[in-house]
Amino acid sequence: MKKYSEMTPEELKKEYEKLLDSYKKYKYQALSLNMARGKPSPAQLDLSMGMMDVLSSDSDLSCEDGADCRNYGVLDGIPEAKELMADIMEVNPNNIIIFGNSSLNVMFDCISRSYSHGVMGATPWCKLPKVKWLCIVPGYDRHFKITEYFGFEMINIPMLPTGPDMDMVEKLVSSDDAIKGIWCVPKYSNPTGNSYSDETVRRFARLKPAAPDFRIYWDNAYTVHHLYEHNQDHLIEILAECKRAGNPDMVYKFASTSKISFPGSGIAMLAASLNNLEDIKNTMNYQTIGHDKVNQLRHVRFFEDIHGIDEHMKKHADLLRPKFEAVINILEKELGGLGIGSWTKPFGGYFISFDSMPGCAKQIVSLCKKAGVQLTPAGATFPYGIDPKDTNIRIAPSFPGLDEIKSAIQVFALCVKLASIEKIMNAAGVKEAAKAGDKAADKA
Amino acid sequence: MKKYSEMTPEELKKEYEKLLDSYKKYKYQALSLNMARGKPSPAQLDLSMGMMDVLSSDSDLSCEDGADCRNYGVLDGIPEAKELMADIMEVNPNNIIIFGNSSLNVMFDCISRSYSHGVMGATPWCKLPKVKWLCIVPGYDRHFKITEYFGFEMINIPMLPTGPDMDMVEKLVSSDDAIKGIWCVPKYSNPTGNSYSDETVRRFARLKPAAPDFRIYWDNAYTVHHLYEHNQDHLIEILAECKRAGNPDMVYKFASTSKISFPGSGIAMLAASLNNLEDIKNTMNYQTIGHDKVNQLRHVRFFEDIHGIDEHMKKHADLLRPKFEAVINILEKELGGLGIGSWTKPFGGYFISFDSMPGCAKQIVSLCKKAGVQLTPAGATFPYGIDPKDTNIRIAPSFPGLDEIKSAIQVFALCVKLASIEKIMNAAGVKEAAKAGDKAADKA
Repeated sequence: MKKYSEMTPEELKKEYEKLLDSYKKYKYQALSLNMARGKPSPAQLDLSMGMMDVLSSDSDLSCEDGADCRNYGVLDGIPEAKELMADIMEVNPNNIIIFGNSSLNVMFDCISRSYSHGVMGATPWCKLPKVKWLCIVPGYDRHFKITEYFGFEMINIPMLPTGPDMDMVEKLVSSDDAIKGIWCVPKYSNPTGNSYSDETVRRFARLKPAAPDFRIYWDNAYTVHHLYEHNQDHLIEILAECKRAGNPDMVYKFASTSKISFPGSGIAMLAASLNNLEDIKNTMNYQTIGHDKVNQLRHVRFFEDIHGIDEHMKKHADLLRPKFEAVINILEKELGGLGIGSWTKPFGGYFISFDSMPGCAKQIVSLCKKAGVQLTPAGATFPYGIDPKDTNIRIAPSFPGLDEIKSAIQVFALCVKLASIEKIMNAAGVKEAAKAGDKAADKA
Repeated sequence: MKKYSEMTPEELKKEYEKLLDSYKKYKYQALSLNMARGKPSPAQLDLSMGMMDVLSSDSDLSCEDGADCRNYGVLDGIPEAKELMADIMEVNPNNIIIFGNSSLNVMFDCISRSYSHGVMGATPWCKLPKVKWLCIVPGYDRHFKITEYFGFEMINIPMLPTGPDMDMVEKLVSSDDAIKGIWCVPKYSNPTGNSYSDETVRRFARLKPAAPDFRIYWDNAYTVHHLYEHNQDHLIEILAECKRAGNPDMVYKFASTSKISFPGSGIAMLAASLNNLEDIKNTMNYQTIGHDKVNQLRHVRFFEDIHGIDEHMKKHADLLRPKFEAVINILEKELGGLGIGSWTKPFGGYFISFDSMPGCAKQIVSLCKKAGVQLTPAGATFPYGIDPKDTNIRIAPSFPGLDEIKSAIQVFALCVKLASIEKIMNAAGVKEAAKAGDKAADKA
């Protein structure tokens, strides 16, 4: 098929009419499909139901150092959970703290602590006239919302196939001491699905921040979340690399079992240098007596070790892979060669990132919604919800069933075509036709 | 027996020598007894082991509104957990948020949120030149440590048999808008074990704070933690009373199942007016996707309803009551009539509070420690760890076995006597004897 940009106005109009017919048929079906959030499917959750059996009223709930997991105590996690999580995080167990059920909460607390009390003795951020934060875009909306909540000025850094634009990161971080941090999802990134190159990680570890309390917020949420057994991204371990580079304290690394066991009932962790851990534990001492050790024990007894995690993640992959492949195949089939969008083909994680022609994302999401397909709101992958070019859409194929995904992506591809033709016709000055078309699709 | 204050110096010296002999014998036994923290005993934890069986791999983990407790979502708690916890907290389920495993963490977060973002639109406390906080003394060390961590100026309010000195509270709260809160453990208070009178609660509800963002931090930690079936303290419900008094937003009420099921693996909750809840949820939206719903479900399936809680708490009481009674009986037998100390006789909670003669508490705790009996550090029940009169000692009889408690309290009573005689002799100017005695007990 011809690229849309090479079609004549007449060809475009004809194509548009045809697409509109299909769109009307979809609307008539009153679909209700949700591709908005990166939630595991019920079948994925079923994989961890055995976790409900590993502890019973006959179990000894002592951990390996003898502490009774049912009682108060143990601020930073039981030893066997530290060991398992250290293997997931690829760090020394001594560099780990185990938290509650939410790594997002751990990140929030890190920022809240830095805001009220400062990082390792530095001035609390609430006492500074301005705090700035680097946000790799497109990125994770909940990250951006935390820094927005604290009133930080967020600066967009473009995500490239190798990771963030490191020239820009280096220049900003070394020249402005109001910049206190950067949000990163380094592996199978949310939403692009690609991973930082070796060079990118090395350059991160060698940053020369103007602010001594600058920290890399390294949210390794998808560290073991591969889709394939052999085609896997590999990421250089950032703590070790920072240590090699003479910047041992520059990074907080986060992860959780949310998309390994049960989201909301998993365990979260943070890895960092001993200096950072001491600083963090100093606050934790006031904050809590300890986190849920019974749940830590439950996870260790169920997964046993990193091999158990790996085998478990293969089962997740078997459920997720066909969904990712279905999305990519349909996009390829429906949109390939039309020149109206591009999309990522990740080896892991939870998302596929779609980039439309400039100025089309909102309209695509809106058309989808009217046809019963809920997507992540356009703009959500940018700070303040503002995508300057209005191109990025995050596709989350994990939760719906395979058939639903296929229907939803057919609708999505159709909406991409409709919105693109509207845009091209508008740009070409064929305004009447475009307006008519626009109205037609909206009202179809 | 004669009051110590009525003994002649010779009688005192003779008594002291006799006591010192007993003390030496205890030291020789190399005891290792810990009466320091309010931890449930293993036998109490065993009462909740059935909670490990109520969910299995065959269970439907949906809650009553159909939400899958295994997945993301539900910010403020599942409906059935809200209902159960509302009954424990004696409030409407709509006035509740269910949190994670630690009510201390919920309190910390309330203060942290108020510090960084303010209460319901008021100026964030971090932007104020000074924040002050009322602390009822003796009280709970972990409360005081939170307000110390945030740099608030803490003001001591004496705890009376009816609750805090309300004349003082009313005067301070209504005259100083830097006072933003007060820590309360209104029922079976930590450490005195007594409860606020009806009049006290009514006066709390009718405070006229100079600061609109003043909040009562009502930590109802021991709401269902009775020792007796009939001799139970009753507390007027503060939310309802504040509403009646036209102060609906003035209170945050906290509780948890830490000493009902498993400390550290229970669930925590906050009750407040809808205005406050909206304010709090606005922050929670940035902080987390939700708390552990599987654990909420586990608690509901195990306890079923408030009757189940009540029956369960009777079993706790059966284990705790003999320990409390042993402490009180031994104190009565050993110290009754000597005029060297007083102690509380609570109907619930986790503590007995002991007041020595002024200036003796540290020495008593120190003598106990040397004889192998670990008590909560003297001063811990006061802000900054400073008990101005050096009299208060918190006794926590829940964790050790009954025989251990008996031994520990025998040692404690002995140390009270030793320290008291030292004090009296010092005061009477019998300095040489006292010094010799002091040294003798220290080195015995």
